[in-house]
Order: sequence, then C-alpha cells, then structure tokens
Amino acid sequence: MTKINMKGKNVVTTQELSVDEIRALLKLAAEMKGDRYADKWAELMKRQTFIMFFYNPSLRTRQSFEAAATELGGHAQFIEPKAMRLKGVKKGDLEVAGETIHDAAKVMDRYATGLGIRILETSVDNYGDGNQLLREYAKYTDIPVINMADDIYHPCQGLADMLGMQEHNNNQPTKGKTILQTWAKGALARSYCSVHESLLINSRMGVNVKLAFPDDAYELPKDIIEKAKRNAEEAGGTFEIIKGGDPKAAYENVDFVYSRNWFGKDFYEIGKAAEIERASSDKYKDWICDEEKMKTANPGCKFIHPMPVDEGAEVTREVNQGPRSIILDVAENRLHVQKAIMAMTIAGYEVEL
Amino acid sequence: MTKINMKGKNVVTTQELSVDEIRALLKLAAEMKGDRYADKWAELMKRQTFIMFFYNPSLRTRQSFEAAATELGGHAQFIEPKAMRLKGVKKGDLEVAGETIHDAAKVMDRYATGLGIRILETSVDNYGDGNQLLREYAKYTDIPVINMADDIYHPCQGLADMLGMQEHNNNQPTKGKTILQTWAKGALARSYCSVHESLLINSRMGVNVKLAFPDDAYELPKDIIEKAKRNAEEAGGTFEIIKGGDPKAAYENVDFVYSRNWFGKDFYEIGKAAEIERASSDKYKDWICDEEKMKTANPGCKFIHPMPVDEGAEVTREVNQGPRSIILDVAENRLHVQKAIMAMTIAGYEVEL
Amino acid sequence: MTKINMKGKNVVTTQELSVDEIRALLKLAAEMKGDRYADKWAELMKRQTFIMFFYNPSLRTRQSFEAAATELGGHAQFIEPKAMRLKGVKKGDLEVAGETIHDAAKVMDRYATGLGIRILETSVDNYGDGNQLLREYAKYTDIPVINMADDIYHPCQGLADMLGMQEHNNNQPTKGKTILQTWAKGALARSYCSVHESLLINSRMGVNVKLAFPDDAYELPKDIIEKAKRNAEEAGGTFEIIKGGDPKAAYENVDFVYSRNWFGKDFYEIGKAAEIERASSDKYKDWICDEEKMKTANPGCKFIHPMPVDEGAEVTREVNQGPRSIILDVAENRLHVQKAIMAMTIAGYEVEL
Repeated sequence: MTKINMKGKNVVTTQELSVDEIRALLKLAAEMKGDRYADKWAELMKRQTFIMFFYNPSLRTRQSFEAAATELGGHAQFIEPKAMRLKGVKKGDLEVAGETIHDAAKVMDRYATGLGIRILETSVDNYGDGNQLLREYAKYTDIPVINMADDIYHPCQGLADMLGMQEHNNNQPTKGKTILQTWAKGALARSYCSVHESLLINSRMGVNVKLAFPDDAYELPKDIIEKAKRNAEEAGGTFEIIKGGDPKAAYENVDFVYSRNWFGKDFYEIGKAAEIERASSDKYKDWICDEEKMKTANPGCKFIHPMPVDEGAEVTREVNQGPRSIILDVAENRLHVQKAIMAMTIAGYEVEL
Repeated sequence: MTKINMKGKNVVTTQELSVDEIRALLKLAAEMKGDRYADKWAELMKRQTFIMFFYNPSLRTRQSFEAAATELGGHAQFIEPKAMRLKGVKKGDLEVAGETIHDAAKVMDRYATGLGIRILETSVDNYGDGNQLLREYAKYTDIPVINMADDIYHPCQGLADMLGMQEHNNNQPTKGKTILQTWAKGALARSYCSVHESLLINSRMGVNVKLAFPDDAYELPKDIIEKAKRNAEEAGGTFEIIKGGDPKAAYENVDFVYSRNWFGKDFYEIGKAAEIERASSDKYKDWICDEEKMKTANPGCKFIHPMPVDEGAEVTREVNQGPRSIILDVAENRLHVQKAIMAMTIAGYEVEL
Repeated sequence: MTKINMKGKNVVTTQELSVDEIRALLKLAAEMKGDRYADKWAELMKRQTFIMFFYNPSLRTRQSFEAAATELGGHAQFIEPKAMRLKGVKKGDLEVAGETIHDAAKVMDRYATGLGIRILETSVDNYGDGNQLLREYAKYTDIPVINMADDIYHPCQGLADMLGMQEHNNNQPTKGKTILQTWAKGALARSYCSVHESLLINSRMGVNVKLAFPDDAYELPKDIIEKAKRNAEEAGGTFEIIKGGDPKAAYENVDFVYSRNWFGKDFYEIGKAAEIERASSDKYKDWICDEEKMKTANPGCKFIHPMPVDEGAEVTREVNQGPRSIILDVAENRLHVQKAIMAMTIAGYEVEL
C-alpha cells in the first residue's frame, strides 16, 4: 500500500504528475462519483474559496469547477481578469501602467485556498505563452494552481477521458487497449489542449495510441509527439502516426475513437479565418467519424470527445447521440476528477493505492 | 388529506400544474416565509447546484433564485448562454457550427439538480419561440426545468402574485375576489409573460378577472384569453374583457388592481421603437393607475405589480409607494415560491393538503 | 468593559463610526484572522445573502467580500446595476423610464441581509454624487449598507490599513506613530477614496499625519482636510501639509509611507486624458517612493498602499516587493475587516472593549 499525498501541488498537466498520482486521482474521482453528496466530502473545502480565473470564458469548465467547489463545502468565485488592469505579459509591455502578475497572484494567495486558471490561444500571441503565464502565477502562489485549460495542456480533461474509458472498460485499467486520435473537419479552429492531454495521458497509462491526420498542415507540435512516444516506450505501449490516406483505414483494431478538429501548425501566423477556410476544404470531407467507419473498429468500440461536439462535422449525430458515445459520462467526469484534484491538492486528502 | 408530490416535474406555467399542486406550492411558500432560515430547509438542496440559464438577464429573478438556492443549502450558478457557442434555434441556422441544445442540456443534467431558464421576446424571432426553446431543454433533461420567465409564461411571478393577494386577503384563498388587469401607458414595451400568468392563475383559482385595454392594438393572444375563459368557467368565476372607454370605469367593484404596460399584438413585426412611439401617444394619457381611480374600486383595494414599476406611467408614486401597494410583498414572495418550487420538484418535498 | 453593538448600522466611512466602534471592528478582525475558518464564525450569516452592487467593477473588493460572506456561512451575490433599468440620479433625468432607487432598494432589502455598494467617480458627473447615491440606497433599506468604495470614502480600506499598521507595530495601537501620505506620479488618474479614508482614520486614531503633494493641482478637497485636522486635534496628534519642495524631505521622522497617485482637483472638469498627461510631466519624476527616500525615514519604516500598486511609478519594485512592504498583509486584512463589519452590522455580533 502506498499513500499518495499531493497537498500544495500544482496541476499543470498530467505529464508532470507521477503515474501513481494519476491513479490516485482516478481512484478518488470514481469513489466520489459513487457517493456524490456524501457529507464526508463536505469538510474538504468547508467555507473556503476557490478562484476560477478565466482569461477565456468557458461554460462547461465553469459549471463543473463551480459545482465541484460547492460539493466540497466551499465556493468558487468566477473572475474574469479583463476586469483587472494588469501589466501585460508581452515583452514590449513592461512599462504599461497596472498591477504586476506578482502582486495579483500574491493577493489571491491570501483570499483563496486554490486557484484555477484558463488561458487559451486567443488570449496570447504565441504558442505556449498561455502556459507560461499560468506558470508565472504558480510561481508566486503557495496555494495550488490548477490548469483549467491553457494553450498546451488540459489535465482535467485528460483525467476525465481516462476515467470514462475505464468505466467503459468494465472499470478496469485501459492498459493494452487502443485509442484512435483522429483529426476531424469543422469550422471551429479548435485548440490543441484537449488533444495533447489525451495523447499524453493515454500513452502514459499504456494505452496504444494511433494519431491520424490528413496532411502536414495538421501535424501536432514536435515536443508533444516526442513526449507521447517516450511515454509509450516507458509504459510498454505503441504510438503510431498515420498521415493522410483513407481516414477509415485508421479505425482498424481500435477500442476508442477520439475524433476532433484542431487548427493547423501555422495557425498563429495565418489566423482563424484562414484556418477555417482551409479546414472547410472539400478535400477533407471524409474526415468525420461515422457509423460506417466505426464498424471497421473493434466490436464495442466507443466514441469519446471532450465536448462541445461540432455535430455533423467532427462526428455524425448517429454516432454522437448513439450507444457508442461516452461523451456525457466523460463530461460528467470533469466534475469528479476536479473534485478529486481539489481534495488532494488543496485539502491534502490522501489516497491509498 | 392529500399528499402532493412534484418530484422531477417541470414548471413551465401554472396552467400545466394541477390546482392542488398550486395550492401545495402556496402553502409551502407561506410556511417557508414564516420560518425563513430554519435548518429544516437547509437539507433540501444541500451542496447541490441549480443552474440559472439567462438568455435574458434579469436582476430580480437572479437575486431571488440565487437567494432561494442558498437558503435551501445549495448554490445557484449564474450562466449566460451568450458565452456558449450553441447551434441556433432558428430555422435557417441548422448548419451553424456549435453545440446542439441536446448536448448542452444533457451535460447540465449531469452537473446540476435543477435548471432555470429565462428567455424573452428579445432573444427570439417569433412569439412562442422562447417557450419552445425552453421546452426543448426540458425534453432532454431528467432534472426539473423551471421557467424563470419566457415569452409567454412566468409561473413564479403568478404564484408570487397569488401568495401576495392571499396575504392581503387575511391569509384566505382569493376565490370570489375581483382583480382588474389593466393595460398602462409607458415607454418600456413590456413583455406579456407576467400578465398572461396573472390572467391564468387568477382565473384558475376562482378570482373574477376584468381585463381592460384601450383598443385593438393591445389585445392579448387569443389562446391565452381562451384558456383564461375556460379556467373561469371551471372555477366558477367570471372573466370580462373591457376594450376602450374610460379607463376609470373598469375600477368599479374591484379588490386588486394590476396596472402594467404591455406591447401591442403587432410588436414582433413593428419592433420596439414603433411600439414605444405608439404607447406614448397622448390618447393613452389617462391609462395610469392613480388614487382617484382607486377610489372608484372597493374599499381596501390593493395595487399589485410584478415590478420593476415604471412609476409615473403605469402608476402614480402616491399609489405605488402608498398603503394600497403590495408590490414589495409580492416581490419578496418570488423568493418564497421559488424555494417551494425547488423543494418540491428538485428535493421531492411533499406537502399535505 | 464596554460592549459594542453595531447591529443594523450602515458603514459609509470610518469618520461616521465612533472611535470605540473602530476599535471593536479592529479587535474582531484580528481575532477572525487568527482563527479564520473556525465554526463559530459560520453561524453569523448562515445561508444569508449579501448583495454586492457594483456600479464600478473591482476585482479585489469582489474577491474579499465574496470570500468574507462565504467564511461567515453566507453567500455574496455579484450584481452589476448596468443590467438594471434604473431611473437616473441626475437632475434632468427624472422622466427616464425605469425603476426608482426607492423600489430597487426596497426589494433588495427583502432578499438580502446586507448590501454592499461600490460607485466611483467614473459613474457620476460630480464629486460626491456617488456617495450621495449610496446614501439614497441606505435611506430606503433596513439592512445595513456597507460602502465598498465610493467617490469620497472607502471605510473597509481604512480599517484594513489600520489593522496592518498595528500588526507591524508589534500589535500595538499606532497612536503617536507618524504616517507620510504622499502623492505619487503615475498614469492611472486614481480616485481619492482610499487616500481620504487613510487621512481620516489615521488622524482619528492619533497617528501623526504628514500630507505631501507637489503643487496646488493636487490639493485634496477642503472638507476632508478640515475633518482630518479636527480629528488630529481631538486625538492629540499632528496634521501637517507639505506642498512642493523636495519629495524626499517629507520622509523624515516617518514610520509608515503611503505613496499613491491621485487625480487633480480639476479632474471632473478636465477629464482623465488631460489628468494623465499632466501627471506624467517630467517635473514630477521624483515623486516615487524608493529605497533612497525610505532611508531618510525612521528605521523600520514600512511601505503601505491599498493596491493595486502601479509599480515603477508610485513605488519602485525594490520597495514594493521588499521587506518594508506590508501591502499584502493590508490586502489580506480587507477580508478580515469586512468579515468583522458584516458580523457586527448584519449579525449583531457584540465585541467587548
């Protein structure tokens, strides 16, 4: 028996947690899901404040974090930094009047016992700047900083995915199963963070990963791919990249299909309009998850997606709302894994493995 | 003795509740008002989340629902769907990228134990579209959906009105009393929902209803009138329409006066500016509730209004802030009836009649 | 022993509290800080609603009030009146359609047990109009109104300052110590309220006050100065005005330095852009608190500021983030004094002196 203690730990990406910490969070989340409103959870954040700091608004993330704090006996404050006059994080801006990140973070450290931050690509100039800003807050706070999605990582989504996959694998670890992570067409120019986190946590936990996308334009950042490959080696799984060809072929021997749009690697240069125009090209018209492709996969193959789903583009309604879809369970799991993260990092709740 | 159980029931309009359910809600609301912060109410939504989904913002509705959830031991989340990328409800919009109502509703169903929705005429194209959208959410959720006002109905307001009228009728049922529901001038182009609900619940509970308005332009939708007439017949009350003439004449033999502006029946075609111009015409200058008219009514006649009041147009300050006015009691009752609705539909609290 | 009871009392400025009431609030705030999440505080606002009414948004004020209500067992609603259609407070506006302050206040009085209001110079036409509007709400409510900063006063900041100064004076009363309140350059055209409140509470509690500013443009309103002088006389302290000269000279014999920008006395006529241009003039370049000036002060002299700090203009990073700075303790104290105010005025918690 090992006791896992994460008190005070920041959660920036599952990649920076130990495998045991990931297991402990999943175990606690499952237990919390099984007995959701039990009084035993209500002492964990009793009358404490969790600050949700949204550089980018998000309905689902807000709903699930706010409910998580409530269910732990605390309260989550919904804050948008646009109401603040903060000194910028961009190089040339140091002389702008306003408060430093240092000061803003240090004060929140006094008022709250946990700090969630969400900052996506639309709030920054360059890939990675959002993650860097989040880490700057974390540098100045003693309270745990929890990543509510940035421009690289999304640990809560990764954990919710993994919990959902376990639930639909007879509540067994998913090691040895295979997931297809496939690019999908669509007009939403979606961010990388959920896709990255899925690649990282799946490869980490020994799930075989097939990553499919149509062409060079939709290659994912090299450092993420390198990390996922190393994860797979260490966990004894496989990591396969399938560029181009018939999107259906990639579905063979697969237990879970994760079909989602993401923007191209030149997105930060070309911008959203150009990205949407490209992704809407007729040449990508088959990059949608449909029942026909699903029949190529293993029997009982499930459809997984971090939601919101762009139905009719990323996946057909038949699959999305059909018996293969586990998206609602995964969405619900956001709540439970976030409760587990808050319980372990903020309250120091210990989990035995 | 009958035990009334409304667990899981949606509350779209009082018209779709049974008379016994209305009585049970009023009885519980009065009891809650009498012992507002008692611990016994605090278990009903303990650490549960109620989502307030505001297509149209509203201060009072938000304040009263948020306080209601707090007083029941829960927490109300203030959510504005404008932060969401939702597929539209309008016909031509089906191809717009974004999430379906189905998916959005199904996820809220997982996070919360109750869902309030507010959607008024300014958020939709045609009369009734708001109500239809609300019903679409209700179709996909297992948790109760509570109408926080749509473009047709406003059940919480109707119940609050009725509770206030009872309080000012020596805490006796108002059957046999008479209410004048009169159009009033003003520059606010006000929605129908509160007025409709008042007509429906009063006629339902056996209150005699006089509906007065100046001319054809301000006729109310036929289906509401038909329902109210049928309600009156079934309850043994009267329902009288007074079109035009001296607005003062309608005050005779009346116990409650409800004077409020509403927009004309061609509002959805002519729009707000044209409506306001028409309603501001000099020919309507006497359509205001004042002390002189009130003297024509029965002794002790009360002034009722769902607030916010457009003082100086719908009613004089003398009446609005004078001893006849029961508006503040009614406004307070919003809180209590909403607590009762949440207790009965969400927590399954049973009321004996 | 005196028992101090403030139940139902409005807190508009510390100037309108008795010295004993100020002492009681500081004593309770210190006790609450020492045992922050104790169950004994959780009954004080159990399931009650505190309305935070923000004519001007403020992150810190919101965070600290919302946390304060949570820690007392209640819930703070974040409300922005811009969502309301209110009749204006300005003279010519009486005919505007919308709700009266009377009605809005009377309804909040029913829903909540306390009302915080924030209204700064940018929401009104003339100096003092914000304070007048706040007093109008207070006139109509029975529940306590707490000033969350207006265009003249900021009692919570004044109390937080004083508590922080005591903490850094070996937890002893600060009577007989000396504070330098100095104007600082900067491009933020800052409001008077924190500075006023500091002058008033310091002079009231017997702290010697030195008020320094560069020239006639930055004179503070006469009525505040007169009150502060009278306070000093009554408390047996000194009150000194230093206009112009070397900003460093004012640091002599000082125990606390409060360096902050404020806008000029003609701000309401010239507006923000002109004020910022003037304040940025090169002739003010030495009006910054730096380590060199601090060395002129008494040994152990502390830097105090209500935050957010405009680092590099009002104070150097060396001082602001260095060992002299007590700004974070003061910011944290906002929470504790606000809890004490709510406990005493809303819950009637009594403090023995």
